[in-house]
Amino acid sequence: MKPMGALPPEFADQRGMLTIAGRPAEDWAADAGDTPFFVYDVAIVAARVARFRSAFPGIDLHYAIKANPLPALLAAIAPLVDGLDIASAGELHRAIAVKPAAAISFAGPGKRDDELTVAIGSGVTLNVESEGEAGRAIGIGERLAIRPRLAVRVNPDIELRGSGMRMGGRPSPFGVDAVRAAALVRTIVASGANWRGFHIYAGSQALDAQAIAETQAATIALAARLAEEAAVSPPLVNLGGGFGVPYFAGDKSLAVEDVGDALRSALDARPAVLRDTRFAIELGRWLVADAGVYLTRIVDRKESGGELFLVVDGGLNHQLAASGNFGTVVRRNYPLALARAVGEEPTETVSVVGPLCTPLDRLGDRIALPAGRVGDLVAIFLAGAYGASASPADFLGHPPAAELLANGY
Amino acid sequence: MKPMGALPPEFADQRGMLTIAGRPAEDWAADAGDTPFFVYDVAIVAARVARFRSAFPGIDLHYAIKANPLPALLAAIAPLVDGLDIASAGELHRAIAVKPAAAISFAGPGKRDDELTVAIGSGVTLNVESEGEAGRAIGIGERLAIRPRLAVRVNPDIELRGSGMRMGGRPSPFGVDAVRAAALVRTIVASGANWRGFHIYAGSQALDAQAIAETQAATIALAARLAEEAAVSPPLVNLGGGFGVPYFAGDKSLAVEDVGDALRSALDARPAVLRDTRFAIELGRWLVADAGVYLTRIVDRKESGGELFLVVDGGLNHQLAASGNFGTVVRRNYPLALARAVGEEPTETVSVVGPLCTPLDRLGDRIALPAGRVGDLVAIFLAGAYGASASPADFLGHPPAAELLANGY
Repeated sequence: MKPMGALPPEFADQRGMLTIAGRPAEDWAADAGDTPFFVYDVAIVAARVARFRSAFPGIDLHYAIKANPLPALLAAIAPLVDGLDIASAGELHRAIAVKPAAAISFAGPGKRDDELTVAIGSGVTLNVESEGEAGRAIGIGERLAIRPRLAVRVNPDIELRGSGMRMGGRPSPFGVDAVRAAALVRTIVASGANWRGFHIYAGSQALDAQAIAETQAATIALAARLAEEAAVSPPLVNLGGGFGVPYFAGDKSLAVEDVGDALRSALDARPAVLRDTRFAIELGRWLVADAGVYLTRIVDRKESGGELFLVVDGGLNHQLAASGNFGTVVRRNYPLALARAVGEEPTETVSVVGPLCTPLDRLGDRIALPAGRVGDLVAIFLAGAYGASASPADFLGHPPAAELLANGY
Repeated sequence: MKPMGALPPEFADQRGMLTIAGRPAEDWAADAGDTPFFVYDVAIVAARVARFRSAFPGIDLHYAIKANPLPALLAAIAPLVDGLDIASAGELHRAIAVKPAAAISFAGPGKRDDELTVAIGSGVTLNVESEGEAGRAIGIGERLAIRPRLAVRVNPDIELRGSGMRMGGRPSPFGVDAVRAAALVRTIVASGANWRGFHIYAGSQALDAQAIAETQAATIALAARLAEEAAVSPPLVNLGGGFGVPYFAGDKSLAVEDVGDALRSALDARPAVLRDTRFAIELGRWLVADAGVYLTRIVDRKESGGELFLVVDGGLNHQLAASGNFGTVVRRNYPLALARAVGEEPTETVSVVGPLCTPLDRLGDRIALPAGRVGDLVAIFLAGAYGASASPADFLGHPPAAELLANGY
């Protein structure tokens, strides 16, 4: 038997039939019309936002829509946050439908001229990733006779310890190396563009509050140093994100309040050049992962070589990350449950596999569950981030999964 | 500097501007209208088919459409092969448009009743994966008053040595364990269904001819043993596939002629119970991988921490496997080239990264290339299999890649 991660707090104490937003999983299945499908509970997102607000008073909250760009979910989240962070022209079209352009910023190492043109034309802030991109953006602004809103993305000379994905402290396609950032700021200011400040992202998926706090303090110090070097105060410093989610057995959820306390101390002591600067934290996964449940039905129950398999009708075509095939070296089990017996004593060890004709399509590897029957729903948790939109939906020609909203408006 | 795999034979001797099917890469870009895009050269697929026919006279060739289900490509391949192997109802709809139902077989561990119904109704052969699935298929056949075409997929008690993906010799969601297969055949025959034979798939992506030959010999012996045990000769034995493609530095292409020679010997000596049996080999990747090139344009050229990056407009959203994030433990470089200087001496070490705002989006890691400029095309080879349809196209909201056919008809 192998361990699996803990259910998110909103589901951890349930017993019997799983409910999502107070409704039984089978009712959601009836709404969806077919399996597999996702349900996203906006109330859980709102609870995470409230927790952030309480821990980080005065700090702007940005939602990185790459984590889950479903339009209905985005419409529900937009009023709860101060900004939306986007990474393509496609995401721009979704963001601008629900948020003013001035509250949208666009990062990404490979922005094409057509993307820069759309972004500048619509008044979105560009986090420029290189001197070359800055030059193209300034040129496009001149041609459009629009003063572009440009922030400088900095590749920091620090990294986020213990992050699942390090993005700083090393050669990187993201941002301009810190040693060249001040010069780029001066170029931007001299061009007459509207300089919006810094975007500094050191890593993601970290569960250690102390590590995030240290990174934030170092980021503030770096922003101050660069601002002094450029002799101009940044209107905004985007401190990045990095708040992780406990997917796996042994993971402990992040003590965001500790991060908030440390950030308050760091900001209280910040250098004068940042006195009037606003600060933002950019979160994707931490806001939406817990809110999503992926539900799939057992199609077959079979034995092979003394092991038991539950074959379900959903798999890595909708939930690539849960299969362990997206950015992870060692496959580990996401939390999952038999929906009609959540929280009940396990009675057997089973592997839960998807319908795809590849051994990669395994959602639960030798986990302990109550006995599942053909027709039962299986729930995979932490499916709200990097699920439907980050999976190879066309692979093997199965239909897309429906995506439903609970507590939406 | 890190190594990369060798270009496929059709491209390995080119110098200067890359040509695909005799046309310069930039002409294909003009056809596509935008980058990134795929080109699939049907002539290369046809050359692989011809090589197979020469090496395996009298053996049926099946195309596993999961490798590349593009309808136009499928229409071009269908007349060249004896059968199409599918893995979902979605693939069934594509296959039946270009091939008679009797030449189509459907494998997959999680076939739902609605998929079984469509398959039986259209006359496709089902490779049944369990006793439970066989029972459901027989029941659906009775309700439809159609005699279902059923083959038994066997989980062999052998594995394919050196295969990239082992699918035999262990507990598995695929097929019925060999020890129970004969009993299932008897059940199927007794039900009045049209028993079509065995499907036995021991692994995929193997480059060792000797290992494949041993597996095929063992598969034939297993099929004979099961047929004798069930006291009925199988009309067809699908020997599986497993023919690999040399993606990485040091990989040697598979000597299929050696496999063919060994198979001929094994079949010449086959037991009497298989005397009138047809044999098929099911290939996906080996037929189409070499035929595909993914072309993407350089958007930025930047330096960070002493390393050089070429940022291109295509990435893991279209070519997940090339980024090393799909079923591989250690990331290695696919073959790639600067399209206007293919085969020319490298002058610099660069990393080629995609436009996605994630460090996972790396197509070439510290490879040696001639100097690339913004606007140049970069070609990624071996993109014909498990590319566009096996990648998370929606991830980060970029447009889908165009897919063009060369030498199609």
